Amino acid sequence: MWVIGSYDKQGKPNLMTAAWVGICASTPPSVTVCLRKATYTHGNIMERKAFTVNIASESLARNAAYVGRVSGRTQDKFLTTGLTPVKSAQVDAPFVKEFPLVAECEVRQTVEVGSHTMFIGEIMDVKAARSIVGEDGVPDMGKLKPFVFSPGSSQFYGIGPSLGKVSELAKRADENSP
Amino acid sequence: MWVIGSYDKQGKPNLMTAAWVGICASTPPSVTVCLRKATYTHGNIMERKAFTVNIASESLARNAAYVGRVSGRTQDKFLTTGLTPVKSAQVDAPFVKEFPLVAECEVRQTVEVGSHTMFIGEIMDVKAARSIVGEDGVPDMGKLKPFVFSPGSSQFYGIGPSLGKVSELAKRADENSP
Repeated sequence: MWVIGSYDKQGKPNLMTAAWVGICASTPPSVTVCLRKATYTHGNIMERKAFTVNIASESLARNAAYVGRVSGRTQDKFLTTGLTPVKSAQVDAPFVKEFPLVAECEVRQTVEVGSHTMFIGEIMDVKAARSIVGEDGVPDMGKLKPFVFSPGSSQFYGIGPSLGKVSELAKRADENSP
Repeated sequence: MWVIGSYDKQGKPNLMTAAWVGICASTPPSVTVCLRKATYTHGNIMERKAFTVNIASESLARNAAYVGRVSGRTQDKFLTTGLTPVKSAQVDAPFVKEFPLVAECEVRQTVEVGSHTMFIGEIMDVKAARSIVGEDGVPDMGKLKPFVFSPGSSQFYGIGPSLGKVSELAKRADENSP
């Protein structure tokens, strides 16, 4: 699950939860966010050409659920959740202070796909809380504790234990092959 | 993690593991797959305008790791893994018989994003093994046991326990709000 931060025309910060978000290129580092036109955030991103992607830890699951179920048209979601908007250094969008991993993105392309608009953003900066960075200097899955959305049952699920290094798994498959 | 099935020019079925895959629209149901031009699968999809997205269970993690680390240019990955290619009914691409959840996709748009090409495919059919479908008739996360890729540490992680229904989580956030 991802929480998208944006400003509206008047500069009011807004948040929404989005499931259809993902990395799409490494050079330049880019991310896609797919939104229905009816969402308040859609209009905001069209206007400001910028957004943030905020990744929640399990402890923020209630907030992520909440901001996905009410509209910024009728509510100041930062006010009702008590979360803190911070103006991004690099782009015209707010990020959420309490979220441990944040990407600041500038829109480079928009693609229409039926019911949804896909915003392709270049990642201009990434902020990670010290508490979720591993010894190797990159975000650690076990410390970040992100979670995923299952649309069938409409539940959030945590991330489970490691199944192993990909290189080790591949080696074992090779040994077993005919 | 997702495993992409495609045919090459000569009709040889190929597989590759991809991390940058996701749903992008509900109407028509659409999925994006982002690939470097250097991959064999990239050329196949350009040629055939079709692919399958195969979702592995934890028990297939070794196979998913393996097909992500060798190229179909030099190897018949179905042969080396012992997996079974099945010609899709709806599109010009093979799916993997042993995988519990499969989507057959036809390319509708291609978008260039720096290092990667994004293929936007319309989902023409979905096949789910009876063993992973819940009582409500949709795939069940706990039965499917999919897994995710952590690029930092290059490990696969399973899906953990449910954190709860999104509607219940949102309600509790609302009760706590100021």
